[in-house]
Amino acid sequence: MSTQSEFSLIETYFTDLTSSRDDVYLGIGDDCALLSCPVEHVVAVSIDTLVAGIHFFADVDPESLGHKSLAVGLSDLAAMGAKPAWFTLALTLPDSNDAWLMAFSKGLAILAKQYNIQLVGGDTTKGPLAISIQVHGFIKPEQALRRDGAQIGDLIYVSGTLGDAGAALQLKLQQWDDEVLTVQDRHYFYHRLEKPSPRIDVGLALLEFATSAIDISDGLSSDLGHILKKSRVGATIDLTKLPLSQSLQNISKTKAVELALNSGDDYELCFTIPADKQSLFESTVDGEYRQIGVIDAELGLRAISVDGQMDTITGSGYDHFSTNS
Amino acid sequence: MSTQSEFSLIETYFTDLTSSRDDVYLGIGDDCALLSCPVEHVVAVSIDTLVAGIHFFADVDPESLGHKSLAVGLSDLAAMGAKPAWFTLALTLPDSNDAWLMAFSKGLAILAKQYNIQLVGGDTTKGPLAISIQVHGFIKPEQALRRDGAQIGDLIYVSGTLGDAGAALQLKLQQWDDEVLTVQDRHYFYHRLEKPSPRIDVGLALLEFATSAIDISDGLSSDLGHILKKSRVGATIDLTKLPLSQSLQNISKTKAVELALNSGDDYELCFTIPADKQSLFESTVDGEYRQIGVIDAELGLRAISVDGQMDTITGSGYDHFSTNS
Repeated sequence: MSTQSEFSLIETYFTDLTSSRDDVYLGIGDDCALLSCPVEHVVAVSIDTLVAGIHFFADVDPESLGHKSLAVGLSDLAAMGAKPAWFTLALTLPDSNDAWLMAFSKGLAILAKQYNIQLVGGDTTKGPLAISIQVHGFIKPEQALRRDGAQIGDLIYVSGTLGDAGAALQLKLQQWDDEVLTVQDRHYFYHRLEKPSPRIDVGLALLEFATSAIDISDGLSSDLGHILKKSRVGATIDLTKLPLSQSLQNISKTKAVELALNSGDDYELCFTIPADKQSLFESTVDGEYRQIGVIDAELGLRAISVDGQMDTITGSGYDHFSTNS
Repeated sequence: MSTQSEFSLIETYFTDLTSSRDDVYLGIGDDCALLSCPVEHVVAVSIDTLVAGIHFFADVDPESLGHKSLAVGLSDLAAMGAKPAWFTLALTLPDSNDAWLMAFSKGLAILAKQYNIQLVGGDTTKGPLAISIQVHGFIKPEQALRRDGAQIGDLIYVSGTLGDAGAALQLKLQQWDDEVLTVQDRHYFYHRLEKPSPRIDVGLALLEFATSAIDISDGLSSDLGHILKKSRVGATIDLTKLPLSQSLQNISKTKAVELALNSGDDYELCFTIPADKQSLFESTVDGEYRQIGVIDAELGLRAISVDGQMDTITGSGYDHFSTNS
């Protein structure tokens, strides 16, 4: 029930982030920021909260946490095909810790600079460690990569590799381990969990091609499920085609596929491309992505398993409140 | 480190809030919301976090908390002269409690409907009780009521009455009491603390007249101090002119003035009007407001005290990181 005067100088840590763009008519320092949206575009917005002990370990490296807090929002812009513009930061901290704040803001700043996204507002509060970031981007509304546009016959793709962040989480929680994993494998997994790369470039490149897209935050089965539900279609995916990192290929095939199919936090994109645009898409758009299945009329998600069996995947992603799931 | 499936049905409580406006191209349910800004306007944004035990008592009536969470943001739009449009809600809850959520969403909904502001995105998370709300409104940029526009000779006004919320807070914290206060006085103070009225109509009416404005969240001396610092001017206010509610007039003059000058949470507006527009302003704009002082060249904030002495008020509002303070 007090204003936290010890937080008054936090401004210092974030100054680098507050002055990169011409479309910020008025930035931090007034009752509101004033922001200019380009004509013929809409503003794409998404807000996400990361809470200590729920979304991250309280002792996580603060630079990685700064990175991830913004990466999660950028990934939502990527999944919409939107170009990043601005973000706001609501930071709740138990105490004002110089070293922690410097590292946290550094992680934020490096990613913000990479994507030319400017900090335009904030609120800093004393309390249990939590970070809410709202991202804002631009897109022409008719081009947006919505979840409800997948059509029967469209091909299903994913970017990057899947399951790496899930492997890291299970290792950290001591829910699973495998003696074949090297120190390098483990570090790779941890890096994927703590410093995900938002696929902004992939999202922008998809605008001409994709009928739908989502980012994989909860797991492929769950997130593809959102597309299927919103588009009122079904899908069959081929589990032998799930893209696996070299490190994940070191463990048993069954475990690797389970992680790639069901674990979250990879922040890759899942998207659909009409079959008649496949060759143009694959010859035009560079980057790491792979076709893993096809949209079909029968509702639900089916998988051709590693041994050639067809399984129905239940409980996939039909229950979320969020624009950001 | 899990997705909170018990939170999956929270959507139920907020559905009423998600479909009132035509300028929402795509609302809740995708990776981002897509929002249309009217031409020749900018989007005014502000984010605020309320944390249990810091900004409110954990056992506060949840309907009042829903009201206040949105009112705080609306007050920032009012202080900018912006017209409310959309908001996002990041809600962190220790558990999913039906009765609590129903009351909280009711408090939000009543205020949202009153100001035609639509919920366009959200994130619901398990953790210590906290609420971050970002509000978005429209304004023509050249009309915005910034903090940096006060000119020497301008008259200083405040809306409503000051000090009531501060009285409530001191009563609740048992930092102060006065036996002259009736049950009705106490209830009035509590109401002012828990259900502040954002002065949207005042803000919109000021667009033709005011050179600067701010909302009084931290206290008049502190918040007027922000205007003085940003505008590089000083001010003299007359403490005998501070608007006091009937309930506050029941206590000692000294204590009442101290509360009106230094306590926050009233969410009234403080603004400046050029002297040559005073009569037109007062004859054109209805509502409860009062002139309390004048902007002058000498830096700092001075007060003509109740006994006619001139005092310098130190430490006023020169130390905040926030677009929302």
